[in-house]
Amino acid sequence: MEKLPCDKLHEECGVFGVYDRGEVGDVARLSYYGLYALQHRGQESCGIAVNDDGVINLHKDTGLVNEVFTKEKLDSLTGQMAVGHCRYATTGSKRRSNAQPLLVRHIKGHMALAHNGNLTNAAELREQYEMEGAIFHTTTDTEVIAYTITKERIRQPSIERAVLAAMEKIAGAYSLVIMSPRKLIAARDPMGFRPLCMGRIGESVVFASESCALDAVGATFERDIEPGEVVVVSEDGIQCYTEHCNKAPRSLCVFEFIYFARPDSVVDGASVHMARQKAGQFLARQHPVDADVVIGVPDSGLDAALGYSMESGIPFNLGFLKNKYIGRTFIAPNQAQRENDVRVKLNPISSVVKGKRVVLIDDSIVRGTTSKKIVKLMRKAGATEVHMRLSSPPFLYPCYFGVDIDSSENLIAYNHTVEQIAQIIGVDSLGYLSVDCLDQLADGCKEGFCKACFTGNYPVKPPKKTEKNKFECKLSERREKNGE
Amino acid sequence: MEKLPCDKLHEECGVFGVYDRGEVGDVARLSYYGLYALQHRGQESCGIAVNDDGVINLHKDTGLVNEVFTKEKLDSLTGQMAVGHCRYATTGSKRRSNAQPLLVRHIKGHMALAHNGNLTNAAELREQYEMEGAIFHTTTDTEVIAYTITKERIRQPSIERAVLAAMEKIAGAYSLVIMSPRKLIAARDPMGFRPLCMGRIGESVVFASESCALDAVGATFERDIEPGEVVVVSEDGIQCYTEHCNKAPRSLCVFEFIYFARPDSVVDGASVHMARQKAGQFLARQHPVDADVVIGVPDSGLDAALGYSMESGIPFNLGFLKNKYIGRTFIAPNQAQRENDVRVKLNPISSVVKGKRVVLIDDSIVRGTTSKKIVKLMRKAGATEVHMRLSSPPFLYPCYFGVDIDSSENLIAYNHTVEQIAQIIGVDSLGYLSVDCLDQLADGCKEGFCKACFTGNYPVKPPKKTEKNKFECKLSERREKNGE
Amino acid sequence: MEKLPCDKLHEECGVFGVYDRGEVGDVARLSYYGLYALQHRGQESCGIAVNDDGVINLHKDTGLVNEVFTKEKLDSLTGQMAVGHCRYATTGSKRRSNAQPLLVRHIKGHMALAHNGNLTNAAELREQYEMEGAIFHTTTDTEVIAYTITKERIRQPSIERAVLAAMEKIAGAYSLVIMSPRKLIAARDPMGFRPLCMGRIGESVVFASESCALDAVGATFERDIEPGEVVVVSEDGIQCYTEHCNKAPRSLCVFEFIYFARPDSVVDGASVHMARQKAGQFLARQHPVDADVVIGVPDSGLDAALGYSMESGIPFNLGFLKNKYIGRTFIAPNQAQRENDVRVKLNPISSVVKGKRVVLIDDSIVRGTTSKKIVKLMRKAGATEVHMRLSSPPFLYPCYFGVDIDSSENLIAYNHTVEQIAQIIGVDSLGYLSVDCLDQLADGCKEGFCKACFTGNYPVKPPKKTEKNKFECKLSERREKNGE
Amino acid sequence: MEKLPCDKLHEECGVFGVYDRGEVGDVARLSYYGLYALQHRGQESCGIAVNDDGVINLHKDTGLVNEVFTKEKLDSLTGQMAVGHCRYATTGSKRRSNAQPLLVRHIKGHMALAHNGNLTNAAELREQYEMEGAIFHTTTDTEVIAYTITKERIRQPSIERAVLAAMEKIAGAYSLVIMSPRKLIAARDPMGFRPLCMGRIGESVVFASESCALDAVGATFERDIEPGEVVVVSEDGIQCYTEHCNKAPRSLCVFEFIYFARPDSVVDGASVHMARQKAGQFLARQHPVDADVVIGVPDSGLDAALGYSMESGIPFNLGFLKNKYIGRTFIAPNQAQRENDVRVKLNPISSVVKGKRVVLIDDSIVRGTTSKKIVKLMRKAGATEVHMRLSSPPFLYPCYFGVDIDSSENLIAYNHTVEQIAQIIGVDSLGYLSVDCLDQLADGCKEGFCKACFTGNYPVKPPKKTEKNKFECKLSERREKNGE
Repeated sequence: MEKLPCDKLHEECGVFGVYDRGEVGDVARLSYYGLYALQHRGQESCGIAVNDDGVINLHKDTGLVNEVFTKEKLDSLTGQMAVGHCRYATTGSKRRSNAQPLLVRHIKGHMALAHNGNLTNAAELREQYEMEGAIFHTTTDTEVIAYTITKERIRQPSIERAVLAAMEKIAGAYSLVIMSPRKLIAARDPMGFRPLCMGRIGESVVFASESCALDAVGATFERDIEPGEVVVVSEDGIQCYTEHCNKAPRSLCVFEFIYFARPDSVVDGASVHMARQKAGQFLARQHPVDADVVIGVPDSGLDAALGYSMESGIPFNLGFLKNKYIGRTFIAPNQAQRENDVRVKLNPISSVVKGKRVVLIDDSIVRGTTSKKIVKLMRKAGATEVHMRLSSPPFLYPCYFGVDIDSSENLIAYNHTVEQIAQIIGVDSLGYLSVDCLDQLADGCKEGFCKACFTGNYPVKPPKKTEKNKFECKLSERREKNGE
Repeated sequence: MEKLPCDKLHEECGVFGVYDRGEVGDVARLSYYGLYALQHRGQESCGIAVNDDGVINLHKDTGLVNEVFTKEKLDSLTGQMAVGHCRYATTGSKRRSNAQPLLVRHIKGHMALAHNGNLTNAAELREQYEMEGAIFHTTTDTEVIAYTITKERIRQPSIERAVLAAMEKIAGAYSLVIMSPRKLIAARDPMGFRPLCMGRIGESVVFASESCALDAVGATFERDIEPGEVVVVSEDGIQCYTEHCNKAPRSLCVFEFIYFARPDSVVDGASVHMARQKAGQFLARQHPVDADVVIGVPDSGLDAALGYSMESGIPFNLGFLKNKYIGRTFIAPNQAQRENDVRVKLNPISSVVKGKRVVLIDDSIVRGTTSKKIVKLMRKAGATEVHMRLSSPPFLYPCYFGVDIDSSENLIAYNHTVEQIAQIIGVDSLGYLSVDCLDQLADGCKEGFCKACFTGNYPVKPPKKTEKNKFECKLSERREKNGE
Repeated sequence: MEKLPCDKLHEECGVFGVYDRGEVGDVARLSYYGLYALQHRGQESCGIAVNDDGVINLHKDTGLVNEVFTKEKLDSLTGQMAVGHCRYATTGSKRRSNAQPLLVRHIKGHMALAHNGNLTNAAELREQYEMEGAIFHTTTDTEVIAYTITKERIRQPSIERAVLAAMEKIAGAYSLVIMSPRKLIAARDPMGFRPLCMGRIGESVVFASESCALDAVGATFERDIEPGEVVVVSEDGIQCYTEHCNKAPRSLCVFEFIYFARPDSVVDGASVHMARQKAGQFLARQHPVDADVVIGVPDSGLDAALGYSMESGIPFNLGFLKNKYIGRTFIAPNQAQRENDVRVKLNPISSVVKGKRVVLIDDSIVRGTTSKKIVKLMRKAGATEVHMRLSSPPFLYPCYFGVDIDSSENLIAYNHTVEQIAQIIGVDSLGYLSVDCLDQLADGCKEGFCKACFTGNYPVKPPKKTEKNKFECKLSERREKNGE
Repeated sequence: MEKLPCDKLHEECGVFGVYDRGEVGDVARLSYYGLYALQHRGQESCGIAVNDDGVINLHKDTGLVNEVFTKEKLDSLTGQMAVGHCRYATTGSKRRSNAQPLLVRHIKGHMALAHNGNLTNAAELREQYEMEGAIFHTTTDTEVIAYTITKERIRQPSIERAVLAAMEKIAGAYSLVIMSPRKLIAARDPMGFRPLCMGRIGESVVFASESCALDAVGATFERDIEPGEVVVVSEDGIQCYTEHCNKAPRSLCVFEFIYFARPDSVVDGASVHMARQKAGQFLARQHPVDADVVIGVPDSGLDAALGYSMESGIPFNLGFLKNKYIGRTFIAPNQAQRENDVRVKLNPISSVVKGKRVVLIDDSIVRGTTSKKIVKLMRKAGATEVHMRLSSPPFLYPCYFGVDIDSSENLIAYNHTVEQIAQIIGVDSLGYLSVDCLDQLADGCKEGFCKACFTGNYPVKPPKKTEKNKFECKLSERREKNGE
């Protein structure tokens, strides 16, 4: 199936886990609702592994949660623990074999892993393991993590000790939920790039990438997993290991607040909705304009638009209708009807903008093609002026920690000034949020964001090879081509 | 597949038609986008019939537009004309055989019909035709209309004359798009219960239930089809027949403005978004309250909430996150997890409502079960007071013109006072829009609404049998049971 | 999906019916097994209609029985009566809407019809009904029969009387199973073109096109339905109406014995296997040859090959392996690999034919393309001589009674002598069964076959229009093209 | 989907490989036809991996070849080499993750493996590798082989040297086709338990489990791969490594001739059809009987029945019709209709057996339940006597080399005498082929069969644990249950 042109950044994953102490009953179904709530973090494939008295069963496939799981399938996944995963995949590695959770058998039994993030030393580790005779079935970092833990497990007295030891080997961004025959383990990298939190349903424990998934399953939010922390749930209760904590500065991806996370989530102590509203308020102060109405591009621009309206006093209104029935299998317009492609998804409400000077709020501009079309629609609907405001700074640098940013040359901000961009997309004025505001977005959020995609200051050393993410693919392609 | 409990009214159909005079090229694909835009009017089944130089091909099935049509299927539907239809069906008649367009062969060739509405004399006509030897393949009114036109066609010199003659026989609500081998015909009942409009792509003509479908396909809105009007497009150009116009008072369903139509549509001259915003403004005047924030229940309550905020001065905010990934095949929570079912779809944003007195705007209350759950969620999220306001009057009477309203005994307003309802759903105060405001909602809209579901004053005589819509089913069941 | 080139004649249908008097329990499942056994009579679409205390439910679709019905679907079809149908469709009318049973609603209730055969006056009747205002949903003869019965039903006191009256109007070949709310009716045309038989499971009654379907469902064969007979099963027991019997000479399609029917069936008193074996014996007498081994082309040539071997004394052997896994969705070889296409389905067993003079028995030659490839395979496998013998006379004339014979110009026998055909397909000698043997094939079979495809002597007047079967299509195409 | 009761032995796999030197063009499509021809060796899952200039793409899933591959899927698999696999799986390990070919990435690139057979030391090797930190994704022997080769590859200069070295580590039955980025390798275990042969299409090379797959793709049979041989195809041509040949006695599974292989295949020099016909001849000599007709149970009993007829002079006939439309998704009769289940698949032809003394030939009896039903059908069809003859000796011992024989207690021959079995299944006499005939079945076949299932003399030491095949499953279950 073709797709409407996508001009947005992508998160790579959502993770979920549950350890039933009697209150849950149906762990697969609970995971199903949890993954629904995390679906925005990854729509290419998903899976749930359940643990029934030590025997692990897994179902995963490409597709959305409601496509991959039927009632019959869910009913067949019985157990007392589960891990779930939803995944966004870059083109080319969309294959089913890369879907997660990853289920592996090793010397001490089974292990299912769900992972969100990107290692910066995956290629090095992979090469090292292969030199020792390892075989790989996937091209994911998750399998590298699985090997690292397995190798430690031989020396270590327990699976949690193996995880802690493995964390000394792996570098980069990772929020992990791991299920062994008897334990459910959550681990977050020492810099805390990706979110991970913990909730309760009575005595039962739930882990999730975002708090909205706890809400969706009726769990009470307990706390965020700390950067570097490992939490183990077993028959013996809950045990926390903090030896990797506070070793490194906090580096939560700031784009979680701007775009990735759901507005109803609370991440590391701060409300996502409030952070976006605040971004809108900063924008109104930094880039004021004389206008009649503030409109957000649905869905991600709405919260910031509200903030802009509050701060500026210019009335907020709903200026677009977003078609909610456009699914994965939507057939894109052919060349002849391409002109109109954005309008199938997003139709301006003429009565709101006709004869008005419009402030249009979006979260970011990647290539600019979609923005150009949206602005055109606004004008066609009768807007006399269009002033675009963006709730993030311009993207300039690649991300090595799990966000699929296009190579720099495709980023419109990389080789154009703000004035040039304004001209290209056809707005009367254009304003980006400044980098120095980012630290003030998330009230109550523990200090420290990764803002490398805006600044180029990477909190950990990026991989040597310049092409992020594609390293080991390239490597093995090379081998294959030159190999035997 | 199970469904989340549905506590909303349902429209029964959306219709679409296109006559290509050279600008369209791919009429099936155009209809596909048109039906996408009308999907909110019917999600149970859909279909597209194309006319390739007089040969009509049809594909229809149960499912959403993007489920029923693949690229291969669309590519196989070539032609110069098309009619499309999407349908909501009451339980029990969800079968594929009832999907539309209806394709019939008669003495003068083929005919494809797409119909939105409900006849009030379908059962009588059906019985009369059966007495003359007719056989029926479906239980739809559409087949009764097809027979009426076919029978007139024997006597009449043309298909359009047959349609005009048939309109003297059929009573009730109907917006029709009919395709014969050489003509595309749009017809609207003399009271104009259901919307129907016309647009252009150059010289090509498009008909659609709502103007949002014209926008989606890049057509320019031309005008609404007048109540009683028949518009015929053929090689000879466009011809309008107005002999049935102005025979009866206009009776557009007012619920099209309140709930059914998409906010970006303009129906009979008035913006749907503006009508809803106005409803919110009236509500603010009729039911003021001292509060901190106005929140709309997504998606239909948002426009009215904005209106309430404007009029009252109480700030508007986004208080819910609606999960956009919950599709038709979503698996409903089982009994144990039922408590939480609404939250999977609709999660409150705690930071917005915590410690606040909330005005909560929704379009209507049917049974009250969902409202009760939503109010509970608001309180759990920290709202100190919840004041519910509804942008329609209380439902009290059944609809015979195409809306699937539950029998009166299931309508909470039928046997409870407003105070009782407030207590049942757990709000601090409750206010309905008054009936006398309805006529003022749609600025610029030509005079005259059907408000029978609120008032019981039916613009045409309802069917004799008390059980609306189910007449002929009952009839044939009786026959079957007692028959041979 | 593409198909391997098909060079065989096609029957158009199989019909099945059951009336449960307590022994059956699951009438849908019984029909499912019955249709499996009749699948060779039609593989394009199938359906089952069940009657649950007067309410008729139907499921039908394109596909084989095991593709169209799932366990869930079968389980949902409960009742005390059922009719089933499987259908072969000529290209172009393969659409789902033409699948059977046909379910119609008329003045006295519901009626489901399953039909095998071809009317010779369908086009005339159709035109007449359309002139009276009838609309048609399909292009099948079955709908014409349904109308004829419905129209008679107005005047007649019962459904069976309506069927008997309708039989005076319709002409040609038909074996029908009809289900009304209270009755199950079997009817066979007065010349008995197509088979139809009746069996028992205790007091319950089963109708089927062939006796093999009775065996498959554990029913005891009772008798064939006589040409012209109508059998009615109801609460009042079984009633037979013979007023149309013995009005016309018996004209059972002789090709039922040669190719269509399953060898384990007994049709009108004669074993199909034995008839084919006998055809082989006649061939051995009429076309003897000095050879080492007799081989049948699977599956239909095996029985005759056995007969040839018995009569000639030349040893029979299994010379081909037929791949049983090639299903409907098999992907045909592309041009480059086309050479080999037959071999994917049919592989010679070299050890059987190497160095041998082979007598190769097949049932018939249509175009000759497949025969040519098979002969080539035989030679490549080492056969020193190939002598082909066919268990039917040459096809020369079109069939109007339900067999899909290509137009004469595509029949190799139409414009070539036997010697020319032998040369074209590359055999050392070629022999057809003579027409005068046909009457002696079926021992014990009641006198009288239709042999029109070999002789041109049609037992009833063929339709005026020369293009069989396609009449009404052509007609309506004409109408559509010239029409409005 | 349920299945009809299966009372047959199962082979576990078919393998296929092709190296295109210009004549093939579409290697995936060629593999597709090859797998069709091998489908009888495994119907649970299948897959094809193609190699496009060093980049390996794979598609595999549960289902038959024509279910797993669509035209689109095949068209997407382009390349110059391919390996294919079809697999039968014992219940419980039917999961998709165990489907083959297995694709792994290792230090020197990619490798795709297709394997037929069963290792006797898989569990030991697996444990050893896990002790060194290995992780496993499947429960198949194939992954153990992949690890063994990968580990050797570190030390060895080439993939073929690694395969040769690995063959010193692995024990048991294996016929392998392996694809590396640049080479296609076929290897057969030193005792030659499973067949493997090689053919040519011009300069292109094809490997297949059976010669019938070479025929199906238009390849010319070249020779069998010798036990212990490794054949490597690359840009440098074809190289054969024979260092493991002639180290051990030949032990081809004799059941390949009796039941598994297709009759049109030639295995290790002998025709399968002829071997079966010969088995029938031996049976006629060892167990003569006075009778009127010889009938084979289709399909596997037909060849032997022909042999029995030839030797005894009793006429052969076709006494059963086997329904060819019963596919994987066939719905089994429910309890009430269970009585009749065999008859849906296999219907006796009454005219052939009525009043006759029948010799009934089948290949083997496993549990006896099906035989009992078939004999009953014969008698019901009118046979006066039924004498059963089996073209194999009684099964008494488990197989460790790839055949899924039930545990001994379920084998009817294990705890019953021939007389007792005859009584249980209801025949007048019963005769098994004697073990000493087995060596004479395959004329021209190189000496030496494995007959261990009949004699208990295993050519290699069976695994220590008594429960064959299930060792590592048990092991890991134990670990999981007792583990962490």
